[in-house]
Amino acid sequence: MEFVTGTKQAGTLELGELMQKDMTGREVRVNGAVHTIRDMGNIAFIILRKREGLVQCVYEEGVSKFSLKDLKEAATVEVTGVVVESEKAPNGIEIRLGELKVLSEPAEPMPLAVSKWKLNTSLEAKLNYRPISLRNIRERAKFKIQEGIVRGFRDFLYREGFTEIHTPKIGARSAEGGANMFRLDYFHRPAVLQQSPQFYKQMMVGVFDRVFETGPVFRAEKHNTKRHLNEYTSLDFEMGYIDGFEDLMAMETGFLQFTMKLLKEEYSKELKILGIELPQTEKIPAVRFDEIKKLVSEKYERKIRNPFDLEPEEESLISRYAKEEWDADFVFVTHYPTKKRPFYAMEDPQDPTYTLSFDLLFRGMEITTGGQRIHDYSQLLAKMEKRGMTEEGMEQYLSAFKHGMPPHGGLGIGLERLTMKLVGEDNVRETTLFPRDMSRLEP
Amino acid sequence: MEFVTGTKQAGTLELGELMQKDMTGREVRVNGAVHTIRDMGNIAFIILRKREGLVQCVYEEGVSKFSLKDLKEAATVEVTGVVVESEKAPNGIEIRLGELKVLSEPAEPMPLAVSKWKLNTSLEAKLNYRPISLRNIRERAKFKIQEGIVRGFRDFLYREGFTEIHTPKIGARSAEGGANMFRLDYFHRPAVLQQSPQFYKQMMVGVFDRVFETGPVFRAEKHNTKRHLNEYTSLDFEMGYIDGFEDLMAMETGFLQFTMKLLKEEYSKELKILGIELPQTEKIPAVRFDEIKKLVSEKYERKIRNPFDLEPEEESLISRYAKEEWDADFVFVTHYPTKKRPFYAMEDPQDPTYTLSFDLLFRGMEITTGGQRIHDYSQLLAKMEKRGMTEEGMEQYLSAFKHGMPPHGGLGIGLERLTMKLVGEDNVRETTLFPRDMSRLEP
Repeated sequence: MEFVTGTKQAGTLELGELMQKDMTGREVRVNGAVHTIRDMGNIAFIILRKREGLVQCVYEEGVSKFSLKDLKEAATVEVTGVVVESEKAPNGIEIRLGELKVLSEPAEPMPLAVSKWKLNTSLEAKLNYRPISLRNIRERAKFKIQEGIVRGFRDFLYREGFTEIHTPKIGARSAEGGANMFRLDYFHRPAVLQQSPQFYKQMMVGVFDRVFETGPVFRAEKHNTKRHLNEYTSLDFEMGYIDGFEDLMAMETGFLQFTMKLLKEEYSKELKILGIELPQTEKIPAVRFDEIKKLVSEKYERKIRNPFDLEPEEESLISRYAKEEWDADFVFVTHYPTKKRPFYAMEDPQDPTYTLSFDLLFRGMEITTGGQRIHDYSQLLAKMEKRGMTEEGMEQYLSAFKHGMPPHGGLGIGLERLTMKLVGEDNVRETTLFPRDMSRLEP
Repeated sequence: MEFVTGTKQAGTLELGELMQKDMTGREVRVNGAVHTIRDMGNIAFIILRKREGLVQCVYEEGVSKFSLKDLKEAATVEVTGVVVESEKAPNGIEIRLGELKVLSEPAEPMPLAVSKWKLNTSLEAKLNYRPISLRNIRERAKFKIQEGIVRGFRDFLYREGFTEIHTPKIGARSAEGGANMFRLDYFHRPAVLQQSPQFYKQMMVGVFDRVFETGPVFRAEKHNTKRHLNEYTSLDFEMGYIDGFEDLMAMETGFLQFTMKLLKEEYSKELKILGIELPQTEKIPAVRFDEIKKLVSEKYERKIRNPFDLEPEEESLISRYAKEEWDADFVFVTHYPTKKRPFYAMEDPQDPTYTLSFDLLFRGMEITTGGQRIHDYSQLLAKMEKRGMTEEGMEQYLSAFKHGMPPHGGLGIGLERLTMKLVGEDNVRETTLFPRDMSRLEP
């Protein structure tokens, strides 16, 4: 028997430690994957890929105590050497190599040139070789940015008094769009995969006042576009005791401000690698659905074909309008038509053909749907009846309302879409670790 | 068009704000759910439930400007009143009520007495009425503790250089235990729900060196016990460049130390409500599987029936042994038999009938399985062949190894089990927000 007493100090150093001023001239131990080898004859540059970035190592014949010809790209190694300042090296330092120990070796050469600055290959190939293609520094950086977004969401909401919840993804049924749900057999009972934590987060507003969840949602929609996935990560929150749906937009704006600051402070390396200019979030315009439809139609001479919904081209034009008129990257579109919103959406008492709801568009694409919900039990029942819905399977959801619910509302943000627009990609698969679409179920 | 500029200052106060010293004597606005009403005649105590706890409000006939008889338990309200110190009140203060505005009303009386200190009802009833039963302060507190555990896991791992990933839950197939997977139809192709992010996190070690995920996993196991769920939240990490599996146990110990500190500092209210004494995590004993089996068998005079696995009773006795002999709440059991571990587990070079792996037991129950993995491609292929496995469907997983992977390992922690043992429950459903088991698919 031995005792484990907590994390140990590793004998090897990470990039941040190597870059500290007082490291120059010191002998260090470093591990990493051999990203690339540039053999110049008597001298060779061995670039190691580490989690924080690249480290240039210099092999010198006669000085370094290992054989260069035995070293393969994609091997993982541990080296010892002396830290030297070097303006031309990736992070301003390089390591003059002494010894090198191979930790593991590849069995075959790489199928993609991941050490190139831009991975010059098709999206299809990138996705087929996902565990390889992500070893490219730029490809990898997108998912660090994605991490920052999720961190920002959670840390901001903790600060605002929200409680994190974990709701089940397998369910008996759902009142929302049954046709778009994946079905499975659950111990000989029919079950579905949840397309949103909507009902659960609403029920939990009656318990914690404010809740959030970051997790997978499943949509069996037969879309095959650049913006749709059949499984994605949804950033959801729901908050009680709101004065109106404006409180939700204010909270989302607060999240975006908090997150941009976090990215700037803690993900500057990745922002630089990807050449990202962070969007302005100080003030986000909010404009009515019917109003912006008209404004866009007039300015860009485009006929309104569907008065109840926004076509992708319209979303794009609304963003263009917001940029041109208000210098805004984000724009809230409010008061969506009731017939296009789910039964639980609260209607505008001023005009019940519209709801107290909104979408948030970011650089031409919807990334959020949100709104105030009906909290009164009888009102909810009446709305369900009006839509021809039965209470079957919704007893628990309804019981929360039967026994008192505060005024509340919430929203859901598509993580991959937000990442995509932030890093400047035009296909949501580029910012999905392992996308699931109609034709892709692997890797 | 209007601009949204970020979170607004709410006009109403939360409990923490009300409890500040300089609030005494001030008039405040507060909202909340009417947890209970105690009518004493000319005076009445109205307890409001807020997200941070309970607030006692005092109605005085003639002074308060509303009619008490119209007020119902479970209504949500907004009140104005003056803050007064009060030793007997739940958090040392009470509000002498002026006005009260009803925000929403229940349609029926509560089915459970949630305002009682202990909710005196069966687990079955609690789960059937989940959105109601969780309004009980003690029931709710368990899930705040659960939040703290997940926060601790993430915050600790961010600090240790891990990257958070989001891997798909729908997959084509999996090499691990196909019989225990839920099957679904994915656009006319057979698919399964992932029972672990194992393969994905391993592949991502080749990209980010260290990764973690907190998300749902699905097990179609036909267990109906107090410790099994068919869907649960798994806290997973995987780390590269390890010197041995001891590094993983050290990292887990670091997580536990970090999290207990976080709970103590930021969840003290909930710890107090539940009467939780935090376990000791300074040093956790680690003992070999074969050794502890023998020790326990001798000390408690229990015959070893299955030399390859631990029976639940044995887990319980091992924890008892660790408590009695080493004053430990946690105990690592290392070197599990190879035949009981998956193909990717690394065998002990000293004796290949055992693996470089471990479980962590906490107060009598396994809450973690982890270990070092095979990182060499040919070794992995050989092991698969030995087990009669084909490469079909595993091409991408294997390609990560074919193209070089560092020595690595990882673990998975069952969130609901860890919460259960921490708060002192004996059924994992008590610490699962909406449990899924063989007979429960709702709510």
